[in-house]
Amino acid sequence: MTKTDIATRVYNHTWKLDPIIRSLIDTDFYKLLMLQMIWKLYPDVRATFSLINRTKTVRLADEIDEQELREQLDHARTLRLSKKEMIWLSGNTFYGKAQIFEPEFISWLSNFQLPEYELSKSDGQYILNFHGNWVETTMWEIPALAIINELRSRAAMKALGLFTLDVLYARAKAKMWSKVERLRLLPGLRISDFGTRRRHSFLWQRWCVDALKEGIGSRFTGTSNVLLAMDSDLEAVGTNAHELPMVAAALAETDEALAAAPYKILRDWNKLYGGNLLIVLPDAFGTAAFLRDAPEWVADWTGFRPDSAPPIEGGEKIIAWWEKMGRDPRQKLLIFSDGLDVDAIVDTYRHFEGRVRMSFGWGTNLTNDFAGCAPKTIEGLKPISIVCKVVDANGRPAVKLSDNPQKATGDPKEVERYLKFFGQEDRVDQKVLV
Amino acid sequence: MTKTDIATRVYNHTWKLDPIIRSLIDTDFYKLLMLQMIWKLYPDVRATFSLINRTKTVRLADEIDEQELREQLDHARTLRLSKKEMIWLSGNTFYGKAQIFEPEFISWLSNFQLPEYELSKSDGQYILNFHGNWVETTMWEIPALAIINELRSRAAMKALGLFTLDVLYARAKAKMWSKVERLRLLPGLRISDFGTRRRHSFLWQRWCVDALKEGIGSRFTGTSNVLLAMDSDLEAVGTNAHELPMVAAALAETDEALAAAPYKILRDWNKLYGGNLLIVLPDAFGTAAFLRDAPEWVADWTGFRPDSAPPIEGGEKIIAWWEKMGRDPRQKLLIFSDGLDVDAIVDTYRHFEGRVRMSFGWGTNLTNDFAGCAPKTIEGLKPISIVCKVVDANGRPAVKLSDNPQKATGDPKEVERYLKFFGQEDRVDQKVLV
Repeated sequence: MTKTDIATRVYNHTWKLDPIIRSLIDTDFYKLLMLQMIWKLYPDVRATFSLINRTKTVRLADEIDEQELREQLDHARTLRLSKKEMIWLSGNTFYGKAQIFEPEFISWLSNFQLPEYELSKSDGQYILNFHGNWVETTMWEIPALAIINELRSRAAMKALGLFTLDVLYARAKAKMWSKVERLRLLPGLRISDFGTRRRHSFLWQRWCVDALKEGIGSRFTGTSNVLLAMDSDLEAVGTNAHELPMVAAALAETDEALAAAPYKILRDWNKLYGGNLLIVLPDAFGTAAFLRDAPEWVADWTGFRPDSAPPIEGGEKIIAWWEKMGRDPRQKLLIFSDGLDVDAIVDTYRHFEGRVRMSFGWGTNLTNDFAGCAPKTIEGLKPISIVCKVVDANGRPAVKLSDNPQKATGDPKEVERYLKFFGQEDRVDQKVLV
Repeated sequence: MTKTDIATRVYNHTWKLDPIIRSLIDTDFYKLLMLQMIWKLYPDVRATFSLINRTKTVRLADEIDEQELREQLDHARTLRLSKKEMIWLSGNTFYGKAQIFEPEFISWLSNFQLPEYELSKSDGQYILNFHGNWVETTMWEIPALAIINELRSRAAMKALGLFTLDVLYARAKAKMWSKVERLRLLPGLRISDFGTRRRHSFLWQRWCVDALKEGIGSRFTGTSNVLLAMDSDLEAVGTNAHELPMVAAALAETDEALAAAPYKILRDWNKLYGGNLLIVLPDAFGTAAFLRDAPEWVADWTGFRPDSAPPIEGGEKIIAWWEKMGRDPRQKLLIFSDGLDVDAIVDTYRHFEGRVRMSFGWGTNLTNDFAGCAPKTIEGLKPISIVCKVVDANGRPAVKLSDNPQKATGDPKEVERYLKFFGQEDRVDQKVLV
């Protein structure tokens, strides 16, 4: 009989903050795996993370209100691991393995708070830095990116009326569902959600994840988002990221140490994790250099995640290397995760079908594709290429070369030094959309 | 399958303004009746209306944000009569009479805009004045009061969580319904909603009106709120207010004119309206003086609305006067509307049952009674005694004496002059709660 639920309405309209980050585990699973390793092996290393907007034409500081940004960052700092989350992290099986997190680590994590941030503006961009111990600053990467991206879409939608919004989401849902229908045609597909960092919004990511779960069933192998994995009973997926070799390289004081850094970090990883978690991310300083200098045991790892070469080209090179090392690629796993859309997924799948095990980590094009959904083009709804990267470790500059020079990060002089050291083989410029 | 309707949620959380006044006819019906008379007979009179907070202990300027107040006042100024409203005002029957509003008046009203306002703060109170032609400024009374009162309750609820709000409204509904159950016991009751100006909120008033409609059926004779009358298919009720004799008296340049002013305005009224609209509001300068000096024809009017004397005492005096004038009170109507709660309604009803026709205009205690509903006392939810009164006409001070000196308004020297002129008979101090 109530036409309007007055209490709910009053609550909605006196909303103080609509939190973007609702939980410390609203982050990528690989951050927790890396965090445990940093906590165990590198507890005293200091590392600065910084926001880097590669889409310079988008002036974030003009689009996003600084006060709102601070409120969201401050809110994220109030979050603590909840009891339920702690129990779930301790009791759940990840990659088929129980107790992947040590009780001491979980206990330390239960007191974890995101460290302070440093925010200012320059030339229409935000300068957002996180200084402190690596074991704290690393945890800002995903929430910082999710906050920036969701605030940007909120700002873009502020002027829209209820019906425009209704139609916007209706079209985005229809669009997403037609992608699901295309993916259904690939019988042996294994695909997971990697879209937390650049998602349109938390609720939209949740909708997309639920749509994949219903739409492609067991071919949807999980989500990198720990909170969604817990809430939707999905596998939490992901292994490691560039920050590991980047910090290891930054800490290297000799040429020998620098050359060994990418492999040293894999040995560290192997001390903590095994099996399906033994995934090599080869492109931090160029995949060609990595394969050229890789010790024999690297070929024993489960798989590779080529993250900046074109997927077919990059995959072929890794398969060729496995064959050269006398391994059977059909027993190996390639994880593709760089700027995938459905076309790229279908093409790559068809190309490698039967020759190698494959998995796709679907990111921005899954959780932030509103192109053509608004009645007229809304620039603020187009995803941008934004990252939050480690920029120094113990005061020494950290660098990523990547297979795509457009994705290189770090001080240009230092990038130059690394390029001389590792070589430039096979590095090819490709347009970075997201 | 959608757990959260994202479009609706985004819309709710990027709400720009939650308008308090949604329509020009979200006002009391008597304002439109008076407006037509002013438009016809006093189009050039200038009159200032001012907000008067009689509850000095409540520092409105501390409780209500000035920016929010300005936004709401500005929003009200953007409103125009809609086509539907125009057609309804023209086509509906009011008090059994068709075409109570002249086509020329409706046509003029269709272009009506609330005039500018003048807002400042002093000593914790808002100074809110409306200067201009009477035919424009008069229309601010109800929206100004509704805005102030709703902004105040919104401010008081800002700190409340969803469950506290849910319980608050649940208790208020339960409380309201127990009033309905008491009123049901009075078989011949005629009661209507007079609670627009001091309502907790528009939606709450609508809920209360719907509750009365369902709860006491035909004994609920309508609402003074024109918008709710239209939307809920109820009778729009109300006749005239103190501003008419107050302006007439202010304009009087001689003692004879001042003495005649209260009756002159009734003659004006009679030119436009008849039948059940012939209701005398006798207390502007004291009911005793009004009855003492009233011409014979005043006794032919349908009824009286005693608005500041205690209801039983005030009603008895009017009945005695009718009898003295040789009229049968059982044919006459008394409308009670001053600070009524259920106790007063029941007592008054029982007292006069069978001796006179009665009607009750139930105001603040109907639409703004949250006492005991919040988990702990919230001062900001207690209604206050606030009015918006005419303070001058053509530059001459306007005064109300009332039967209750606490409800007198106007410059104290001028009040003194009026008291000498009209006398003080039967004026009794009573606590003014609302």
